[in-house]
Amino acid sequence: MNGEVMKIENKIRQLGYTLPQSSPAGAIYTPVRRVGNTLYVSGQIPWLDGQVKYSGKVGSERDVKYGQEAARLCILNMLAAVKNAIGDLDKVKQVVKLTVMVSSETGFDKQHLVANGASQLLVDIFGPDGCAARTAMGVNQLPMDVTVEIEGIIEVE
Amino acid sequence: MNGEVMKIENKIRQLGYTLPQSSPAGAIYTPVRRVGNTLYVSGQIPWLDGQVKYSGKVGSERDVKYGQEAARLCILNMLAAVKNAIGDLDKVKQVVKLTVMVSSETGFDKQHLVANGASQLLVDIFGPDGCAARTAMGVNQLPMDVTVEIEGIIEVE
Amino acid sequence: MNGEVMKIENKIRQLGYTLPQSSPAGAIYTPVRRVGNTLYVSGQIPWLDGQVKYSGKVGSERDVKYGQEAARLCILNMLAAVKNAIGDLDKVKQVVKLTVMVSSETGFDKQHLVANGASQLLVDIFGPDGCAARTAMGVNQLPMDVTVEIEGIIEVE
Repeated sequence: MNGEVMKIENKIRQLGYTLPQSSPAGAIYTPVRRVGNTLYVSGQIPWLDGQVKYSGKVGSERDVKYGQEAARLCILNMLAAVKNAIGDLDKVKQVVKLTVMVSSETGFDKQHLVANGASQLLVDIFGPDGCAARTAMGVNQLPMDVTVEIEGIIEVE
Repeated sequence: MNGEVMKIENKIRQLGYTLPQSSPAGAIYTPVRRVGNTLYVSGQIPWLDGQVKYSGKVGSERDVKYGQEAARLCILNMLAAVKNAIGDLDKVKQVVKLTVMVSSETGFDKQHLVANGASQLLVDIFGPDGCAARTAMGVNQLPMDVTVEIEGIIEVE
Repeated sequence: MNGEVMKIENKIRQLGYTLPQSSPAGAIYTPVRRVGNTLYVSGQIPWLDGQVKYSGKVGSERDVKYGQEAARLCILNMLAAVKNAIGDLDKVKQVVKLTVMVSSETGFDKQHLVANGASQLLVDIFGPDGCAARTAMGVNQLPMDVTVEIEGIIEVE
């Protein structure tokens, strides 16, 4: 133990965010599976306090900014799941890969800008180690009509 | 060799299922690639005896139950491919990750329930080790108009 | 150094292709992340000389052949990114996994044929080690309206 403990959680607080309670799985899956030092994190949705907080498609009813807010909440849920799995976010070595699915009206093609909401938050929190390889894609529909779903691969110490 | 051999295949039979013949690749890909003890399984479709068995979109022409049956057949094809690759399903240590793509009418948002068809079967077969990290998503179209496609990452001994 | 150096790049040239300049990331991501000997390559788009070269959906305005050409350019961009990350494509041990997303009109269900454009090129370049596990899927929209996006996992020495 030293003065550096929980530095990542402190950083999250300094940025004005709070880690959500890691929600119990809403279906038959495990939030985080580990192989060696690699964590596979299930697709995270913009869920808060037991409810979907961001729903609908980007491109008509929802704009890019709304999608970015949804993406940030997905990331906070991802970090809550990782903390729940390994106990301490300071053990994160790098965010390896993000797959960002954006519920999109056909014709909307700025999924990469929506995904930037997720990516920027991870860089703000982890610095260069948070700048993951990434795929952003549009889909016509996500579970529970959420606006964004994000899965991740994370390397830990 | 001992009395425990092939216990996973026995379990599959007890549940009333049969492993399909591992179909030859229908395109230019390898069914299973291995890195260390991690298997990457190509996207599996609900294919049986050389034909697509479940086609069409969930949300209008097809319902959740139909999608779940399709998802189960994808999993049986996945297990057949894994058996073909490593010889014995008893070497499976954990099902790490599933990505479940559901061909969806726009407006249908219960992809997680469709995916449960796959997840429940894996839990029935492997117990807690079969409860993978998971992403479920809707897409507007899958190859050969199949209803569900599932890829997986599996750790073996 | 010996006569075998750069044999993969020579093969690419013999096939009549040129590696594009590895484009700077157009958003907040890292083109390639490494965990041990596994490379995770960000979703690659059919981008050349600073511009999208293949756009629109397969199924009406674009045909399978157009999609296959787009897929090949995605692969060339992937190899350029890998070369940029590890210095030398001869260090590639196997192409482990490809995920091929095809921007699709609803009703178009030949995404596997589009993906074959990518797969065949990798087999032409790397031989059997280039024949990856694969998922091909349709989506209703991709970033910047590109026709195809491909992400990959590659094992290196």
